[in-house]
Amino acid sequence: MSKTTKASLSGKKSRTVIGHLLHRLKEIGITDIFGVPGDYAFPVNDAICNDPELRWIGTCNELNGAYAADGYARIKGLAALCTTYGVGELSAINGIAGAYAEHLPVFHIVGMPKCAIQLKRGIMHHTLGNGEFDLFHKMTQPVVCASTILTPENTVAEVDRVIDAALTRKQPVYIAVPADFALMELGCAAPHPAVPAASDPQTLETVLDLIAGKLGEAVSPVALVGTLIGRHDLRAEARALVERAGLPFSTLFMGKGTLPESHPNFIGVYNGAILDEAARSVVESSDLVLGLGTIRSDINTGAFTTNIDLSREIRIQPDHVMVGRAVYQNVHIRDVISGLVQRVAPRACPAHPTPAGLGAPQGAPGEAITAGSLYPRIERFFRPGDIIMAETGTSSMGLVTAKLPENTAFYNQTLWGSIGWATPAAFGAAMAAPDRRVVLVTGEGSHQLTVQEISQFGRFGLKPVILCLNNNGYLIERMLCEDPYIYYNDLAQWNYSKLPEAFGMADWFCARAVTNAELDAALEGAARAASGAYVEVVTGTMEASDMALALNRIVFKGGGWKA
Amino acid sequence: MSKTTKASLSGKKSRTVIGHLLHRLKEIGITDIFGVPGDYAFPVNDAICNDPELRWIGTCNELNGAYAADGYARIKGLAALCTTYGVGELSAINGIAGAYAEHLPVFHIVGMPKCAIQLKRGIMHHTLGNGEFDLFHKMTQPVVCASTILTPENTVAEVDRVIDAALTRKQPVYIAVPADFALMELGCAAPHPAVPAASDPQTLETVLDLIAGKLGEAVSPVALVGTLIGRHDLRAEARALVERAGLPFSTLFMGKGTLPESHPNFIGVYNGAILDEAARSVVESSDLVLGLGTIRSDINTGAFTTNIDLSREIRIQPDHVMVGRAVYQNVHIRDVISGLVQRVAPRACPAHPTPAGLGAPQGAPGEAITAGSLYPRIERFFRPGDIIMAETGTSSMGLVTAKLPENTAFYNQTLWGSIGWATPAAFGAAMAAPDRRVVLVTGEGSHQLTVQEISQFGRFGLKPVILCLNNNGYLIERMLCEDPYIYYNDLAQWNYSKLPEAFGMADWFCARAVTNAELDAALEGAARAASGAYVEVVTGTMEASDMALALNRIVFKGGGWKA
Repeated sequence: MSKTTKASLSGKKSRTVIGHLLHRLKEIGITDIFGVPGDYAFPVNDAICNDPELRWIGTCNELNGAYAADGYARIKGLAALCTTYGVGELSAINGIAGAYAEHLPVFHIVGMPKCAIQLKRGIMHHTLGNGEFDLFHKMTQPVVCASTILTPENTVAEVDRVIDAALTRKQPVYIAVPADFALMELGCAAPHPAVPAASDPQTLETVLDLIAGKLGEAVSPVALVGTLIGRHDLRAEARALVERAGLPFSTLFMGKGTLPESHPNFIGVYNGAILDEAARSVVESSDLVLGLGTIRSDINTGAFTTNIDLSREIRIQPDHVMVGRAVYQNVHIRDVISGLVQRVAPRACPAHPTPAGLGAPQGAPGEAITAGSLYPRIERFFRPGDIIMAETGTSSMGLVTAKLPENTAFYNQTLWGSIGWATPAAFGAAMAAPDRRVVLVTGEGSHQLTVQEISQFGRFGLKPVILCLNNNGYLIERMLCEDPYIYYNDLAQWNYSKLPEAFGMADWFCARAVTNAELDAALEGAARAASGAYVEVVTGTMEASDMALALNRIVFKGGGWKA
Repeated sequence: MSKTTKASLSGKKSRTVIGHLLHRLKEIGITDIFGVPGDYAFPVNDAICNDPELRWIGTCNELNGAYAADGYARIKGLAALCTTYGVGELSAINGIAGAYAEHLPVFHIVGMPKCAIQLKRGIMHHTLGNGEFDLFHKMTQPVVCASTILTPENTVAEVDRVIDAALTRKQPVYIAVPADFALMELGCAAPHPAVPAASDPQTLETVLDLIAGKLGEAVSPVALVGTLIGRHDLRAEARALVERAGLPFSTLFMGKGTLPESHPNFIGVYNGAILDEAARSVVESSDLVLGLGTIRSDINTGAFTTNIDLSREIRIQPDHVMVGRAVYQNVHIRDVISGLVQRVAPRACPAHPTPAGLGAPQGAPGEAITAGSLYPRIERFFRPGDIIMAETGTSSMGLVTAKLPENTAFYNQTLWGSIGWATPAAFGAAMAAPDRRVVLVTGEGSHQLTVQEISQFGRFGLKPVILCLNNNGYLIERMLCEDPYIYYNDLAQWNYSKLPEAFGMADWFCARAVTNAELDAALEGAARAASGAYVEVVTGTMEASDMALALNRIVFKGGGWKA
């Protein structure tokens, strides 16, 4: 903290409230800010656009902007979003909640009416007309890890406080900037003393000894890698740990691809009783499962079908460690994993099954596309370096056990599961890594929620591949509800492959595939295209992936989620 | 209340929690429920779709569903929306807040995880992963007038309570239904005694005498009609009052068209110093202004340039009356206006200016479309019976003083002002009144937020006319910010007139107009089309309507809003 705090007061532009906020955000690595402008936010919008070190990335709407920031933060480790008061911030709030659930530090900057107007209780646009101005700040508090309304007096201390919170907890924060305060000079330049988060040294020592000892004694230890390893930027450390300790490793669905699936220690994705019997067998027969930053939610545990006795498990979480049933607080995941890399005894990785992936695509060329013909073809379509954005629902579920090539990133939103997320999140990811190919895999039902954001790919010259799986409705819902064909699962019928042209990308490669041969041709065209590519993949109404079928069996026919 | 309460317990279907809720909603007139389905809401979704007296109207996303419900409620007086837990309800929350600000009773039904799961604090999808299940209910409370989580024990009483609140206050309510409770039998069939809202009789008497007396004594009284007259379904009563009392009447922008603009007593829309000098002169020189259900917000008062001394004003509001500076509480707008119709002395309406409308369209056929050539053409395009949905921003502002034909309804969202509202709200209005022509007038920037909902017009066989004014960015923002050409006001460039085909309406009349002649041809085509019609109207970047120009003068150059 001390280095950046000192730096934070230098420079002419940091003398105003908004100048200081942006200065500090740039110091921690923010270069892009997503959002939709609005009059209460003009001083913020102006300051961003007039700063040559910052880029404003306008999105079609605020929820899409929040999703894009989410996708961007998955790649870059942090992101920023700016919206206007009331209408803007509330439109974004579901995306912010998703970033909270899924541990992504998104700085949500909200332009507020002038303090002078608030004091007069004016009946202003974007208010409820009741003279109250602090309601929306309160509404957002459950879905951010810190929030503040800046004033000239509190800015220096408050900006540091919320930055600390976001970077420590890897969750979003809310920063409201009243329009008149934005351009005022800082009233108090002395930062409050910041207390950087640190592990308790004795607890850390205890935990490191305990884990290293147990790993040394275990006969068949395995690691279970979760998504929080990526969020806390510990991929290299986690990899060093599994290599040094000779641990075969599995991942959960949230966390797929966090360590390379081409790694010799990889045994496949563990999804309880639902998929991949080989990985399950290794994990469940192990005498010590080392959980690294995992989230044990319903879908992420194969509908709670994972079966690991806590007494033979260690869970390293962001701010605590569980050894069996004992909880050790105030030890941070980075300190624990880094410490273990130093402390564990080197050991060779034992023989274990190697995951095969989805296998050869089924189906004759002229036949209709089925789940069995589709997902293996998508697996083969992936290439090293890809960023894969997989939408909630049967589309991402079809890729759980797909084997990813080298250096591939795979993202889904399994805990929050807000359908529509993937399309704007893919845009955000593409902005974060414009040199990598982004592949969006989405069902058409989810795609409808946020479809307009594909226009941003064209606007910013990005060249993603969009695979829109059109199965005539909300398929994952058909798998889980009483009557699959009940009409609430139906959708408006679109001409999906004509969307890119309408949204301004007349030069994209677009195709609609109904047969396997058409799908092969479309994927080949998409792979070779010098432009973005959009492929509508038409399947039968009930062509569900294996995991979706298993959820149907276990959750629907089994009487619901066993929380 | 007593009639419906008795009825509410009859019938087999009303014996479960969800059955009773839907039964009571049908009793008060709900026939359609907008929404997006989701697994926690399946028992609710199922009950709706399986009820032959109800229609499920799926929307592309939840915010659009909320806007559609808003538009529907403007026509029908009430509406319902159903979303799933967390991701769904939070996506809708900005639309609910708009319905709260603008006084529209929308019943927001939210499917919640089973109580059994909540008690286990399961890490379920659509949660924050922290075992907390009541956060979203709390988040919504500032933007609804009542909320409840139903149980078998509380359903009978709670449903009555929230229905009362919604219908009395004309604002949204929130009804959460845990999935396991939905299908349980009612545990308590005895309703709590409902106390129907009623005016205090003595206060009502006092107020009626006072107002009737003042109207009788006034030399030049005028009425100022606001949007709450429509919300409280008092158009006929308000009309009877102005006719009997011989009152020339004006309306505010929110409220335009509430009484027919073809009425002989109509003097034009009053927007302070901004527009229509004739209407302003009559209102501001009157010795008694009778305000009927008005909302005095910033944009609705011409940026607070209205100039009426409170001492010569009477304001009849939903639950109180102001006579000068004296406030009379607990008198309801219906009782006051109905009472006045009986009590005021009949009087002839004096001579007054008749509003002329926008006048002859400017511009030669081959010339580019300007504000002066555009808005008068739109005015001429309107025909009796139209429902006009006018988006926030310079597009709706161009129509403030357009003279509406007979039986025309005009809706805008001036207080909440959430851009994107008009497109789905137009769909909702069309569902509420499928026999009337809906004309959507929107800027392209606003249209981008919610554009996918136009596909619903096609899905439901509706034939609106969509006028998308493409002025290359957020024009109202260009009018109000420091540098009109700053790049946050720019947008992705779409081929708007190709959207209907991509969204499934290959048979629509679509056109793109750049010159006045093209605009004339396009409007003629749209008027004659047997299908829906979509016209992209291209203008210069700064072709702003008069009111937008005035806001630029008064608000931007004048140093901001004078709350």
